[in-house]
Amino acid sequence: MKATLLNAARSVSFEEVADPTVKLPTDAIVKVSASCVCGSDLWHYRGINEVREPMRIGHEFVGTVEEVGSEVGTVSVGDFVIAPFTYGDNSCAHCRAGFNSACEQLGGWGAVGRDGHLADGAQGEYVRVPLADGTLVSTPEPPQASMVPSLLTLSDVMGTGWHAARMARVERGSTVVVVGDGAVGLCGVLSAARMGAERIVAMSRHEPRQELARQFGATDVVAERGEEGVQIVRDMTRGVGADAVLECVGTGQSMQTAFDVLRPGGTVGYVGVPHGDGLPIGQMFAGNLNIAGGVAPARAYLEELRDLVLAGEIEPGRVFDSTLPLPEVAQAYAAMDERRAIKVLLQPG
Amino acid sequence: MKATLLNAARSVSFEEVADPTVKLPTDAIVKVSASCVCGSDLWHYRGINEVREPMRIGHEFVGTVEEVGSEVGTVSVGDFVIAPFTYGDNSCAHCRAGFNSACEQLGGWGAVGRDGHLADGAQGEYVRVPLADGTLVSTPEPPQASMVPSLLTLSDVMGTGWHAARMARVERGSTVVVVGDGAVGLCGVLSAARMGAERIVAMSRHEPRQELARQFGATDVVAERGEEGVQIVRDMTRGVGADAVLECVGTGQSMQTAFDVLRPGGTVGYVGVPHGDGLPIGQMFAGNLNIAGGVAPARAYLEELRDLVLAGEIEPGRVFDSTLPLPEVAQAYAAMDERRAIKVLLQPG
Repeated sequence: MKATLLNAARSVSFEEVADPTVKLPTDAIVKVSASCVCGSDLWHYRGINEVREPMRIGHEFVGTVEEVGSEVGTVSVGDFVIAPFTYGDNSCAHCRAGFNSACEQLGGWGAVGRDGHLADGAQGEYVRVPLADGTLVSTPEPPQASMVPSLLTLSDVMGTGWHAARMARVERGSTVVVVGDGAVGLCGVLSAARMGAERIVAMSRHEPRQELARQFGATDVVAERGEEGVQIVRDMTRGVGADAVLECVGTGQSMQTAFDVLRPGGTVGYVGVPHGDGLPIGQMFAGNLNIAGGVAPARAYLEELRDLVLAGEIEPGRVFDSTLPLPEVAQAYAAMDERRAIKVLLQPG
Repeated sequence: MKATLLNAARSVSFEEVADPTVKLPTDAIVKVSASCVCGSDLWHYRGINEVREPMRIGHEFVGTVEEVGSEVGTVSVGDFVIAPFTYGDNSCAHCRAGFNSACEQLGGWGAVGRDGHLADGAQGEYVRVPLADGTLVSTPEPPQASMVPSLLTLSDVMGTGWHAARMARVERGSTVVVVGDGAVGLCGVLSAARMGAERIVAMSRHEPRQELARQFGATDVVAERGEEGVQIVRDMTRGVGADAVLECVGTGQSMQTAFDVLRPGGTVGYVGVPHGDGLPIGQMFAGNLNIAGGVAPARAYLEELRDLVLAGEIEPGRVFDSTLPLPEVAQAYAAMDERRAIKVLLQPG
């Protein structure tokens, strides 16, 4: 089969690699029907996270089960399945508590796992899925093509935006600020709206993203950044601050903004991989400014979000503003890197 | 009147100072019937927080109202009252949300406030109380002498331990670890027990404090510190970690221990003034290890805790293992500094 390789910073190729096979009786092989590029892939693409040798990449995919090992019981050949951005057993103490991203058997796509075998990257034609019963969630029947983009977002960005809102304790009537207008931030807006937030301020300075934020439920958009943006949001809340802030970027500045617009006793729900200089502990302590979050347990939310998508209640797939054939994956990276696209969907070419 | 002055590191005196008077119609004058020395006073006493000039000190007191300004309506001359360790209006947006420690009119004892006048330190004979209606809480009748120590803890240490447990989201059935065996940590144990925790591990290496922790509801005591202590707690929880951790110290090591024993998705409730090097953000993000807390809104909990004390449901006053006449306040500081006493109660001499 063919799959994507990130060879070095800004060097992406689509090449012949070994076909995946069932290695363990708990494995499944999935034929990928849609995958995509993630903002977190860009940390590697841009060389911020070092690329020491060519790596298989991509961690978001949906597809059809082609083959299952002898111990796989919850999915069958022919099922349409959604995979979360990490795999695991969905049965250990951490998974049972809803924190699958801390699974005792946790593994990541595109890397050799604890089982000694490669779990393929998602930006390829096929993927070997370890622990298939714990990892994959199927749909009752093959979905309409129009549903596929939204189901694909459940792999990562929608589950991650949902996690930010959950961890920030958004509830009916909340005033919420979303820092970050990437796909995760936009899904955070959608999640906060779904959870009943009364006021949702999207901090975004890109016109098409502002527009999508409004469609997803943002009541206000603030284009200014840094201290200027903070002052505008504080004025909007009559100096009190927001009940909940979703931090969906991960830089030092975005995290500082998140705390600066939060009210005492409120919570920053953060899901952007932290690349800043730490947390402002003195400010946090003085103001009872709390923080909760981390790597999203996308698997924990899959069934609930799948049902919302299939019922037409949410349409997170609108974050995809571009579609390319998988063999043109290098162009997808370039488009996202240059912010010409919010998120690019990749289809078999 | 006479009051305590901290002149420089390790120099405490009890001296004649100006008698307080009603300066504003919202003031009350309280005759102090009990005060005490706080662990946080020791940050100054030990010179860790700089003492630039002689300062009035003490922020925990109960007493009897001697005089009220013309606009004071909720307390009357002769009332027995409890004061929280900060004063405020109890009516602004932050107070109404239960975060009185972020009150828009917040002030501290022993310092000149926003109103331009001194609010006396609590380790003295009388205190001018600004914003008396928002600050003071009275008892239905003068309490029995045996109740006074417990009511005094509501000024700070019991309210602060309660806050740690609340922010850590302790609930019925929780497994809780309490880091710190000072008065706040011990009150944290008592709070967790009251909130229905099933297992409470007190990390303490001092025999009398271990004993009191057990009396307050600790089911286990771990004397080891650092990595050794962490391993013991992790083994106790079969490698999973605690649902909630109360961080009641504020050093870098105690904070690290708190995160190291926490389960993914759990929360560190922290109330020790942070004196460490920041937070382990990478570890927190990877494990969804959350943190909530800060300066306790003691005022928000006063009525509820007062009623529990008066009903005999909790007896936090047992943290006082020593009583001294107020004029001997310097000895109280020395005893706490040298850990000869957990907490010293000061009575009019």
